Amino acid sequence: MTEMQVDINADAGESYGAWPMGRDHELFPFLSSVNLACGFHAGDPLTMQRTVALAREHGVAVGAHPGYPDRVGFGRRDLAAGADELYADTLYQIGALQAFVQTGGLRLSHVKPHGALYLRMLRDEVTARAVAEAVKAYDPGLPFFVLSGSLMERVARELGLPVVLEVFPDRAYLSDGRLAGRDLAGSVIRDPAEAARRAVMMVTQGRVQALDGGWVELQAETLCIHGDNPEAPDIARTVRQALEAEGVRVRAHSQR
Amino acid sequence: MTEMQVDINADAGESYGAWPMGRDHELFPFLSSVNLACGFHAGDPLTMQRTVALAREHGVAVGAHPGYPDRVGFGRRDLAAGADELYADTLYQIGALQAFVQTGGLRLSHVKPHGALYLRMLRDEVTARAVAEAVKAYDPGLPFFVLSGSLMERVARELGLPVVLEVFPDRAYLSDGRLAGRDLAGSVIRDPAEAARRAVMMVTQGRVQALDGGWVELQAETLCIHGDNPEAPDIARTVRQALEAEGVRVRAHSQR
Amino acid sequence: MTEMQVDINADAGESYGAWPMGRDHELFPFLSSVNLACGFHAGDPLTMQRTVALAREHGVAVGAHPGYPDRVGFGRRDLAAGADELYADTLYQIGALQAFVQTGGLRLSHVKPHGALYLRMLRDEVTARAVAEAVKAYDPGLPFFVLSGSLMERVARELGLPVVLEVFPDRAYLSDGRLAGRDLAGSVIRDPAEAARRAVMMVTQGRVQALDGGWVELQAETLCIHGDNPEAPDIARTVRQALEAEGVRVRAHSQR
Amino acid sequence: MTEMQVDINADAGESYGAWPMGRDHELFPFLSSVNLACGFHAGDPLTMQRTVALAREHGVAVGAHPGYPDRVGFGRRDLAAGADELYADTLYQIGALQAFVQTGGLRLSHVKPHGALYLRMLRDEVTARAVAEAVKAYDPGLPFFVLSGSLMERVARELGLPVVLEVFPDRAYLSDGRLAGRDLAGSVIRDPAEAARRAVMMVTQGRVQALDGGWVELQAETLCIHGDNPEAPDIARTVRQALEAEGVRVRAHSQR
Repeated sequence: MTEMQVDINADAGESYGAWPMGRDHELFPFLSSVNLACGFHAGDPLTMQRTVALAREHGVAVGAHPGYPDRVGFGRRDLAAGADELYADTLYQIGALQAFVQTGGLRLSHVKPHGALYLRMLRDEVTARAVAEAVKAYDPGLPFFVLSGSLMERVARELGLPVVLEVFPDRAYLSDGRLAGRDLAGSVIRDPAEAARRAVMMVTQGRVQALDGGWVELQAETLCIHGDNPEAPDIARTVRQALEAEGVRVRAHSQR
Repeated sequence: MTEMQVDINADAGESYGAWPMGRDHELFPFLSSVNLACGFHAGDPLTMQRTVALAREHGVAVGAHPGYPDRVGFGRRDLAAGADELYADTLYQIGALQAFVQTGGLRLSHVKPHGALYLRMLRDEVTARAVAEAVKAYDPGLPFFVLSGSLMERVARELGLPVVLEVFPDRAYLSDGRLAGRDLAGSVIRDPAEAARRAVMMVTQGRVQALDGGWVELQAETLCIHGDNPEAPDIARTVRQALEAEGVRVRAHSQR
Repeated sequence: MTEMQVDINADAGESYGAWPMGRDHELFPFLSSVNLACGFHAGDPLTMQRTVALAREHGVAVGAHPGYPDRVGFGRRDLAAGADELYADTLYQIGALQAFVQTGGLRLSHVKPHGALYLRMLRDEVTARAVAEAVKAYDPGLPFFVLSGSLMERVARELGLPVVLEVFPDRAYLSDGRLAGRDLAGSVIRDPAEAARRAVMMVTQGRVQALDGGWVELQAETLCIHGDNPEAPDIARTVRQALEAEGVRVRAHSQR
Repeated sequence: MTEMQVDINADAGESYGAWPMGRDHELFPFLSSVNLACGFHAGDPLTMQRTVALAREHGVAVGAHPGYPDRVGFGRRDLAAGADELYADTLYQIGALQAFVQTGGLRLSHVKPHGALYLRMLRDEVTARAVAEAVKAYDPGLPFFVLSGSLMERVARELGLPVVLEVFPDRAYLSDGRLAGRDLAGSVIRDPAEAARRAVMMVTQGRVQALDGGWVELQAETLCIHGDNPEAPDIARTVRQALEAEGVRVRAHSQR
């Protein structure tokens, strides 16, 4: 019988210069992967270097987290960048992070786009293709985190990129498989026990209850914990412990 | 008898978004190496990608040209960045360029710091060491362009980096070996024939006349042509033709 | 009988640091107003100061030209900024320019949004209202340039802002009154004589032929000349001369 | 007999986009003036607008806090900007803030340069003059905060600017009147009672004990509380209460 495995990821390295953000030190003990900001929407060279070192210390796999070049908006505002710009912006950010990963004694484990760029890849094929093609051009064997069941997944698969299917135990789903918008009541799950319950169901049963009734089928290869949730470290710890209690092994995709 | 060889380099890829700069198309035919801006003092991802493609087309070697994070000042204003910041900034910029070099089918040929950062490395050992250590951490075999006879050369040699000794045929020298400040009359050579005469003397005789009398001994492994000189393409062409007429072969250090 | 009058405007001050853009010196003699970039999509403090001085020298009225905070995209990529951000961004940019206008001995003559922000104000009321409200909060008597017949005009009028109706003699119109997209053949008029002919018809007859047949009725209080058209100075000169030959006086709205 | 008065100021509005900084809400009740970041080293338009509103709510006077255009370095790294650049950068930042002050129903109360720019004005006359001349050009009656006894004070007085003499109760002085460098043990005072004792002595006796022995004579018109001190709100409260207990009235210079 095969051991069940899953990855737990969170965004990291989101400080900027004198401005700290996130609680990387508290979160990393419970993660197996991090998506590290590359200096466009957040992060700066020194923060990237230090966060890679922290990841190494905790045995956490490091992926690139490219975003829109909109620092003041934290990459959360959609930007009508052209496909050629998105392709080049993605390469630039992956390469910049790679310098720290490599000199920090690690290997780049994956790529996961950030914020409004990620969301645009769920609905716009040109954007999804531009980013995925940049990843493929950089390294056709580099795993790409995609929302399970999305346009983004389809595009990445068509290009032949290895995909890692992502689910969100701390976010509510709609019955059509989409994430519930943050403006909907109940869309963000703040109770660690509830998030853990959902995580276990996602991983062991491949489904989760939808906010608007019914069930969503999904495939959970990596669980994303939102670091901007004030309860993030509690959620990460509780999710991990619940999974391990069910016999699920938490490890990075790249470490299997 | 050994064939004489020398490299001719110039800065490139200094456009930014909608703002063009330089005449890369006119200059590249006469160069063997370019120092490509990495997005801090100049350049942007799309410009980097396109300039790498242009370099490949012309068979020109591509090196990284990291600068201070001061775009509005074009990296020409000294900035009291700490050693840890300079180290990380250098890694970031090399890595970002590497993504385009690698996906563009080339290999990174060298690193040459830009503007006020380069000048600070001539007088401040902490700065020189921080940047050179970043290059070494990235790739200890990556050639580093240094001003012949400078503190920068000494530091790079102490770290064991391969150095390429740089001279400036379009700039006047002082008898103590330093470059004459741009505020001194005669410091910038605009006559292509004069620049070519100096280039030939630098390469074949290892010396050049100083602005304040006497001669400066130097070792010329790469000749820098300033692209912001309006006569730059003429100078590059005339310098190259004069060298070739003397039997000197122009080729990138990395292509020998 | 009343003398006919019209304003001729163009964007100005679009250089950035070491990167020049536009031909302000050649264009200003033929303009009565300029829309001066405020440092977000283009322009920097020193460029703003110098462009105000140039405007004063030529007797040209200076308006603020706020844009999205997207310098690498030159403010030409739509950005999903919130209404509160757009309001504050607009105030910031107007205030910054005002410092140079005031110390340069002039008075701020108008506000005209730039690029993708202007275009978004033609179709999104929230955006149009946020920007117009910022102008009104700053100075309820400050004229606002609006596309004749647009949503932007309606919103500005509802707020009670003084509007100046803008038309584009160097751009083709569609019969429904919208500007033809730049991707349509014939959308950009490069022939100075043709632009002049259209300008005269717009001002004296209040209409222009549409690209797709028929006529567009419009009201021309200010004519915009696109400075990025390589023929811009010729167009501006020819348009002005043709208008003056018809007895139309060219002067800034603020100077009437 | 005249009532003694003094101003208490602190930096404010130093958040940037999604990154909060400082504890403006906790500090403002104890301040009479704030130096509000203008978007170069910190702050952004929306933060500026909100911080002006908060200042108004607390009856706190708002001054401009211009800094170097070095956001990632928080304006704490010296930058060799030219006098013309510093002049224009200062005007730009004052104007930008003025838009929020004016639409927020307040009047701009003063200007105080930030970080490395402030420090450079203590030792470099060209810098001091460039910034002070920008303030004078903007409004010759606008009070300028200067370190009591410094080059900066002399230059501002020579230009005829109204000066407000600043002292630092939470920082140690050397016997020659300079602030002790932050690398010296004891240079930062963290004990609120000690800071309060020093503040009272500065205001009522015009002197303070030096770190290296002896006394420094100074004139205290405004007391700066460093907001990045974790004890800042405690210090501000304790300083204010101690002063009021001595019969000193705390109020902004502009409100006298």
